[in-house]
This record gives sequence, structure tokens and C-alpha cells, in this order.
Amino acid sequence: MNNKLTHFDEGGNAVMVDVSAKAVTTRTATAKGRVTMHPATAALIANHGHKKGDVLAISQLAGIMGAKRTADLIPLCHPLPLDSVSVTLQLVEGESAVDITATCKTSGRTGVEMEALTAVSITALTVFDMCKAVDKTMQLTNIRVVYKEGGKSGTFVAD
Amino acid sequence: MNNKLTHFDEGGNAVMVDVSAKAVTTRTATAKGRVTMHPATAALIANHGHKKGDVLAISQLAGIMGAKRTADLIPLCHPLPLDSVSVTLQLVEGESAVDITATCKTSGRTGVEMEALTAVSITALTVFDMCKAVDKTMQLTNIRVVYKEGGKSGTFVAD
Amino acid sequence: MNNKLTHFDEGGNAVMVDVSAKAVTTRTATAKGRVTMHPATAALIANHGHKKGDVLAISQLAGIMGAKRTADLIPLCHPLPLDSVSVTLQLVEGESAVDITATCKTSGRTGVEMEALTAVSITALTVFDMCKAVDKTMQLTNIRVVYKEGGKSGTFVAD
Amino acid sequence: MNNKLTHFDEGGNAVMVDVSAKAVTTRTATAKGRVTMHPATAALIANHGHKKGDVLAISQLAGIMGAKRTADLIPLCHPLPLDSVSVTLQLVEGESAVDITATCKTSGRTGVEMEALTAVSITALTVFDMCKAVDKTMQLTNIRVVYKEGGKSGTFVAD
Amino acid sequence: MNNKLTHFDEGGNAVMVDVSAKAVTTRTATAKGRVTMHPATAALIANHGHKKGDVLAISQLAGIMGAKRTADLIPLCHPLPLDSVSVTLQLVEGESAVDITATCKTSGRTGVEMEALTAVSITALTVFDMCKAVDKTMQLTNIRVVYKEGGKSGTFVAD
Amino acid sequence: MNNKLTHFDEGGNAVMVDVSAKAVTTRTATAKGRVTMHPATAALIANHGHKKGDVLAISQLAGIMGAKRTADLIPLCHPLPLDSVSVTLQLVEGESAVDITATCKTSGRTGVEMEALTAVSITALTVFDMCKAVDKTMQLTNIRVVYKEGGKSGTFVAD
Repeated sequence: MNNKLTHFDEGGNAVMVDVSAKAVTTRTATAKGRVTMHPATAALIANHGHKKGDVLAISQLAGIMGAKRTADLIPLCHPLPLDSVSVTLQLVEGESAVDITATCKTSGRTGVEMEALTAVSITALTVFDMCKAVDKTMQLTNIRVVYKEGGKSGTFVAD
Repeated sequence: MNNKLTHFDEGGNAVMVDVSAKAVTTRTATAKGRVTMHPATAALIANHGHKKGDVLAISQLAGIMGAKRTADLIPLCHPLPLDSVSVTLQLVEGESAVDITATCKTSGRTGVEMEALTAVSITALTVFDMCKAVDKTMQLTNIRVVYKEGGKSGTFVAD
Repeated sequence: MNNKLTHFDEGGNAVMVDVSAKAVTTRTATAKGRVTMHPATAALIANHGHKKGDVLAISQLAGIMGAKRTADLIPLCHPLPLDSVSVTLQLVEGESAVDITATCKTSGRTGVEMEALTAVSITALTVFDMCKAVDKTMQLTNIRVVYKEGGKSGTFVAD
Repeated sequence: MNNKLTHFDEGGNAVMVDVSAKAVTTRTATAKGRVTMHPATAALIANHGHKKGDVLAISQLAGIMGAKRTADLIPLCHPLPLDSVSVTLQLVEGESAVDITATCKTSGRTGVEMEALTAVSITALTVFDMCKAVDKTMQLTNIRVVYKEGGKSGTFVAD
Repeated sequence: MNNKLTHFDEGGNAVMVDVSAKAVTTRTATAKGRVTMHPATAALIANHGHKKGDVLAISQLAGIMGAKRTADLIPLCHPLPLDSVSVTLQLVEGESAVDITATCKTSGRTGVEMEALTAVSITALTVFDMCKAVDKTMQLTNIRVVYKEGGKSGTFVAD
Repeated sequence: MNNKLTHFDEGGNAVMVDVSAKAVTTRTATAKGRVTMHPATAALIANHGHKKGDVLAISQLAGIMGAKRTADLIPLCHPLPLDSVSVTLQLVEGESAVDITATCKTSGRTGVEMEALTAVSITALTVFDMCKAVDKTMQLTNIRVVYKEGGKSGTFVAD
């Protein structure tokens, strides 16, 4: 394991790491997460999916838009163009949960795992917002990177 | 349990709920969450806390700023002034985790639990960003509302 | 007709008008607009409305979020809290058009017609974006205020 | 005519389309639009153009800045660097209208017609805002793409 | 002189100070600053002021818009509605300088000196940007608060 | 000395200059500035630097984040990716001042001096905000470009 926090310089100051010497390559990252909820809330989401206003569709769109705001939100993230963002949600009624997966791609000098994680987080927050009037016990949980490809550090696949 | 998703009108369209008839009252909300990590990562954070650049201090600031962006990020959230935001982080080395607590207050017509949850989420994402070069297995977990006060729905305290 | 452009001071400089002496009242505004398109595009939108990904639902959400960005976009607009935003879209297949209506409310010292107009415009731009791969001849048209209420200038209803 | 809405995947979910395999080329787009108004409003704008505070100059600047916010506003638009943005306004007093033209350029993997359309729309909204105290009957109209060049789909020129 | 930095809690953490117990009053603040430059640059600005595109008018507008972004930029600033923003610029050709004054007002629980200072700073940065192709030796200088009124701390007037 | 303001076209309209024909090269810029203050304020900052909440660390982070917002704030600045941002602060107790240095890098078609200047300005504004409860007489001063490299105009070093 690397033992250096890269976001600090020799003097201990926070820095946005210099990536100017890195190659521009296609970089991909996938993150996942889950919103757990009361069974009745999951049932409400399921029923609403057949109408025009759909909790999952709205949350998905919020996640895509959220990915684009990553560098505004995370202090030391590099602003970068995004080549694609996709977010999918799966209502797992048996477990009273919504599972979220986000994949981002860039042609850049640094990875996009923070963009994928931000997309999952904003998606999950929006599920919470849409359902909070009926259920205040929801939890956002297990938000993590599951795949990362491109760049010098190679491919990462979570166990 | 309420059985109505308030963010949809009678026709099933998404709406930003009309709160104009609600009273302006002081409203408070507290959210919590945790970032789990490899023990070596927790040790690195602990060691760095004595230097100028501190993972926890940077993440805390990101969380406070994130709270102010809530209405930009969550599609149906009301934009509202905030009277206070506080975020605290606790490194729990024995459990290789960082615990995050955020409290927001407003004098407004609607609650601030989304602001508190957004503060916790952005704080947690920043911890991840600062440490991802050494540990890609971190998880953001148990992000939830633990306290809510003010407004017609009364006080909520998580079990 | 008033013959003074209020956004300029005596010296001819642009200003954000001083509203501190105005009363806080509930203010409402409604704007409307239309996107015209090729009949085949209108048919595609109609067919897609039955699937998860719905041009009109996505555009509607973009419009609500756009209303919240009004003061960021329009140089001399006052930033203000919004009590409600609603946007509705109607596909008028016979006329190959999508009609958009947005209504905003605030409890503030100045009106919200710019918020309603911005909501309609961003909604219309999103319809365009979603359909531009199949139709580059669409037009955003007849974006206007149809109703305004609250404040000293009284109620305005378009003919 | 193409019969596929590109912003949806096979499962009907909204996506930010993957452009990573597209070539980086210089891409240009021009959009136009008009604000119609009462003849007295057009006269006021004409008279004010000789002072420091100029409705057209302010609106023009708002349009340029608006172009830079496109990806923040339109949910599925790619964030991209812009190589140039120009906006021009023409007061057509005989027709009591302001005509707006915006041209954007990028060196990227996707087109900039949404940036040009957003520039025109924000310019038009600002004209409205600056004059709304004297004329509430203005309309934003005929906002459309008139030219597009670069990329695989070739050159588009409106009739 | 007070000896306490208010933006830290007892444990030394940064906080957005709790203002919920403060009264809503009208608060005003004025800030000033200067951009110094080469005499030839001042002459260029002077000459350009008679044309449509005016360095001072563009910078002034940027300053007004910048005031509205204060809480986005300054980590511990409270987001608040603004009742008015005015920015004036004065070319002092004899001293090869542009003097900038900004005044902001709010009806809120906290002061607006940061908004006034941000308006001056963004105005000054824009003057720099507009002229940097001809003069890289400009300086932004003497940016300060000159007046503050409203709230418990009383009126402040700089010597 | 060049005698042309590049941000205006032949007709005198403001434009975001067309850089599409410029080469993509690595470009660097360094800006500096200072916040002057009462000696007692400098002493308070010095003492606080040993606690968790540190005025300089918070201001430094605000400056890095501010650099990323440059194109949002300065009307005619090109939005561009940033390869690195570093900000350092030095408390000069003998002179009761905080000195700020910011360096930005991009691989782009236009320079990053505005990003470096914006970073210094936002850092300085944040120092002011953190200390304004104890000292309203602070000044932001001598904000300037000291170094610029890359691009056709060659290297600039301030005297």
C-alpha cells in the first residue's frame, strides 16, 4: 500500500495535484451505492413508476447532473470534460432498497472515480428527498468504487 | 405512515411543493454518516492531522460549502437561506472509520434535512478523494437523518 | 406606459434595483412558451412517453431546476427564495408542438416573472437537446408572461 | 429522418451519450432568436444605447456568460471547453424587435448548438428583464439553430 | 478590540456562525478598491468608453453578478437574499487608475460586507482581464470596507 | 505596447476571443497578493494556526476552489480544464500581513493568469471574512501577475 496522501505538498499544504505530465487517455470508473428504506416506501416507489412522475427517473437525472458538478463540490478535484455519464437504479423490493450504479468516462489526465461517486451520492440524496415525507429512516449506504480503468495506476476491480 | 409522495401533483408531474402558506419558523436538522477504510488509511489520516494539511479539516469545509449547494443539486429542493451549518468529523481509529455529523438551521418555510444530508455526503466524498490514492476500498455508509425539529411535522429523533 | 428603464441609475449605470423598502408579499407569476417541431419528432416524443425515459419529464425537471438558477443567469435579477415552482408540458400532436407553462411563487420584495420565464426557456432548450439528433428545425417560440400577481404594480393578465 | 432519440439507452434510461470514440474536431454552431416588444419599448432601448447603461450591451454579456453555463442547465449536455462565443444584437425599430445571433466554437467531441441556443435564450431573457418594468407583453420567439459545422453529421444550414 | 475569531467553535472547528437568534434588519455595506495600470492602458479605456463595448460597463456588470456568488465562493459566508447591489467605476486618468465602489443591502440576520468586497474584487479582476493583452503590470489594490450599517455591531466608517 | 483591447470585435462588441486556431500547450501563471491587517489580528492568526481550525488553511482551500470558478465569474474568460492549482500563504507578522501566492497550470489554448489572480483574490477575501469580526480595517492589496509562461506571447516575469 502506498503511504502518501497525494493532495498535500512537501510543506503539508493542500494542492490540486499537478497532472500536466500525465498522458491523456480514456478513463472509466464505476461506483455503486444503495438507499435502504421502509418496505412501504419501496412499495410506493414501485407503484409510482407507472405514472409520469417517477422517483427513480428523477433521481437518475439528478445523478447525471451531479456528476457534472463534481469539481465544484470536491475541493481538490480537477475540472475535466466528461465523455459520458450513465446512472441506473434498480428497486430491490425484496430488500426494501434502491441500488444505484454510475459509470463515467473522460478523455483526460486524471481519473473519474469521484465523478462516479458523486453521481451515486446525488442520486441517492434525491431518492431520499423524494420519499422523506413518508419515511425519515432511509439510509444511504455502501457507496463505493467498483471499477476503474485507464491511466498509469491500471485497472481496479473491487472484490 | 403517510402514503403520499409529496413531490408529485395530481397529474403525476414532479413539482417543487408550494410552501407559501407554511409559517416561517426556526428549523434544525442533524444528519450523520461514516466513511469506512483500511486501517492503514485511518493511521495515515491520524498522522496527518498534526500537520498543516489535514484531511478532516478540508473535508469539513467541503461539507459546509456543500450544504449551501443543496438546492442546486437536488432537483425539487427549495432554495433557502441558512442560519448556520456545522460539520464535525471524528476519526474512530479502532474501527478504521471517520464519523461525520452535520447540523443545519434555517428560519424558513421548509426543513433542512436535505442540507444536513448533503453536507455529510460531500464531507464523506472529500475524505474519499483525499485518500483514494492509497485506498480504493473505502465506503460511504449509514448516511441518515438523526434529528429534525421545527415546522408542523414536529420533532423527529432517530431510534 | 412607464418611460423609465428601472435597471439604470441617474448616471446611466446598470444597478440591481433597491427593493429594501418594498413590502414582503406573496408574489406569483406564470409564463408560457412553445417548441415547434417536425411532425415525426412529435410522434417520437409521444411514443417515448410510455417508456421510462420521457422527453417531457426530463425537460420538466430541467425547467424546475433552471428556475432556481435565474439570479445566476440574469445579471440584474435579485436572488430570492422560491416557495414553489411548477412546470407542465403538453404535447399538441395536431400542431407538432410542445406547450410549456411554468408558475413560480415567492414571499419576497420583488416579482418572479423572470423565474417563470427562465423555467420555460430551460424546459424548451431541454426538449430541443433531447430531440436535436432527429430534428434540427425545432424552434422555441412565444415565450411570454401570461400572469403576474402580488406587489405594488398589481395583477397583470395577458390578453 | 433518423428515428432514434439518442439520449436514451436500450432500457429507456436517460444517458449522457458516450462520445469517447468520436474525433476531436473544431465544431461551430450559430443560433438566432428575436424579442418582440411594444414600439415604445424599442424606442426606449434605442435612446438608451447612447448612454453608459445599454440594454443591448448588458444582454449581450449575459448571453456570453450563459453559454458557459449550458452543461449546468441542460441535463444531458456534455461539459466542454469553449474556444469562442460571440453574441450580437440588432434593434429592428421598424419591427419593434431585437434580433439576436450567437455563434459558439469548440474543439471537442460533440457539437455546440445547445451552447449557441442557450446564449440566445439568456440574452433574450435579459432584454426582457431590463425592459419588463415598462412592457410586460414582450415575447421571446423564433429561437433556432441556423448553422452547424464539424463532426460526423456534417454541415447543417437552415433554409 | 475583540479577541475571538468567530468562525471557529470551542473545539477549534470551522463553522458557519449561528445567526438564527439575530434580528432581521436592513444592513448595508460599502467597499472600495482600485486597479492601477500603465498610463497607456488608462488612455485605451478612456477612448473605448465612447464605443459600444466599454471596459468599465462590462466590469461593473461582472461585479454585480459576482456579489450574488459570494456565499458560493467564501466558505463560511451565509447565503442570503440581496435587496440591492450597485457598483460604480471611475477612471482616474491622472493617476492611471480605475477606482471601484460597491454597495450592497440586505434584509437579513448578518452583514453584507463580504458581498460588497466580492463585488469590488470581481469588478477589478474583470478590468484586468479586459486589458491584460496590453498591460500585464496592472495591480488590484486597496480593496477594503469603508462603511457598514445595521445589526448589533453598529455603524462602521473607515477613517 | 500593443494598442488593441482584444475582447472587442471590429464593431465594438464584447466577445470571448476565438482561440480555436491557437496551439494546445502547457501554460502556467503565478499571481501574488497581500492582506494587510492590524498587528493584533496577525497575532490571532498566528496563535490559531496551532489549532485545528486555521485561517490560512481555510483561505488556501477557498482559493483553490475559486480558481475553478474563474470562467463563471469573469465574463469573457474561456472555460478550461486545469492541470494543477497551488496556493500558499505566508503570515508576515513583522509587517502584519498575509502574503498569498497562487500558481495555475493548464494544457490549453489560452493562458491561466486570470485563474491565478482569481485564486489569490478569493483566498484574500476569505482571510478577510475569517477575521472581520475582530478587524474591519484589513485591505487586499498588490494583487498582480508575477509570472506567465506558455503560448505565443512568451514568458512574462514581473520586475
